[in-house]
Amino acid sequence: MLIRRAEAGDAQAIAAIIMPTIRAGTTYALDPEMNEAEAFAYWMSEDKQTFVAVENGAVLGTYYLRRNQDGGGAHVCNCGYMTGAAAVGKGVARAMCAHSLDVARAAGYRAMQFNFVVSTNERAVRLWQALGFSIVGQLPGAFRHPEAGFVDALVMHRAL
Amino acid sequence: MLIRRAEAGDAQAIAAIIMPTIRAGTTYALDPEMNEAEAFAYWMSEDKQTFVAVENGAVLGTYYLRRNQDGGGAHVCNCGYMTGAAAVGKGVARAMCAHSLDVARAAGYRAMQFNFVVSTNERAVRLWQALGFSIVGQLPGAFRHPEAGFVDALVMHRAL
Repeated sequence: MLIRRAEAGDAQAIAAIIMPTIRAGTTYALDPEMNEAEAFAYWMSEDKQTFVAVENGAVLGTYYLRRNQDGGGAHVCNCGYMTGAAAVGKGVARAMCAHSLDVARAAGYRAMQFNFVVSTNERAVRLWQALGFSIVGQLPGAFRHPEAGFVDALVMHRAL
Repeated sequence: MLIRRAEAGDAQAIAAIIMPTIRAGTTYALDPEMNEAEAFAYWMSEDKQTFVAVENGAVLGTYYLRRNQDGGGAHVCNCGYMTGAAAVGKGVARAMCAHSLDVARAAGYRAMQFNFVVSTNERAVRLWQALGFSIVGQLPGAFRHPEAGFVDALVMHRAL
């Protein structure tokens, strides 16, 4: 699997991953009704570096890395990861997270923080814990899950 | 003290409050070097409602209220408050927070969350606790304080 910066030619493949995830509305606090242009504006905004995971010419997943805060908070980065439905369970998120930790270290960040991990996304919570992240915050009822109703969101953190 | 929506005519008074706070770099994770236009773009961005606290024609403080997340997180709001140096200790922040809780309830929000309360800002932490907020997260070393070095930031929350 090759992980590299996203390019203009990846747009369609990225849309095929992020749009179903956004529409499902179960893991990201984004408007499920947003259109593709709005989704791109979010996922590939100027403050982010966006990457894709590619195997045999197919984009299996995508992630972004950005500064989580400015000023006195600029030494902590934040990432978001999405894996295409067909590639779930193949270690794509794990590979992307490991890659992002390397990118973050190379950029001089001291820590990585996930601000809003939906607690029902247990696969993600377990994976981040396996990759060294700790739960440093629990936001009560912060996410309205389309099936589960109001569930907690977690803040997860690891030093670099 | 009257608390009302900020208007174009308040710009100079708001700048006199927010610029010294941003320049100090001790309580907000914002670039201390940002110029006034950038500061306004942040404090009065389209996704925010911005208010001022006025007494005897003088603006003593200002705050914003916004949705903290979109989609499944849109039922939680977020605020930021700044009090002018001359008005510190006069209950301006308390009055603004109480006002914001009313505004938030009227808008239908279910909770208010502060994402990044610098732990050395003890006056603020105590005030938010007195106003019903709990610490729901502690972000290790998340803020580089110009004098104290790396200090924790707190996530604070209260139901509405």
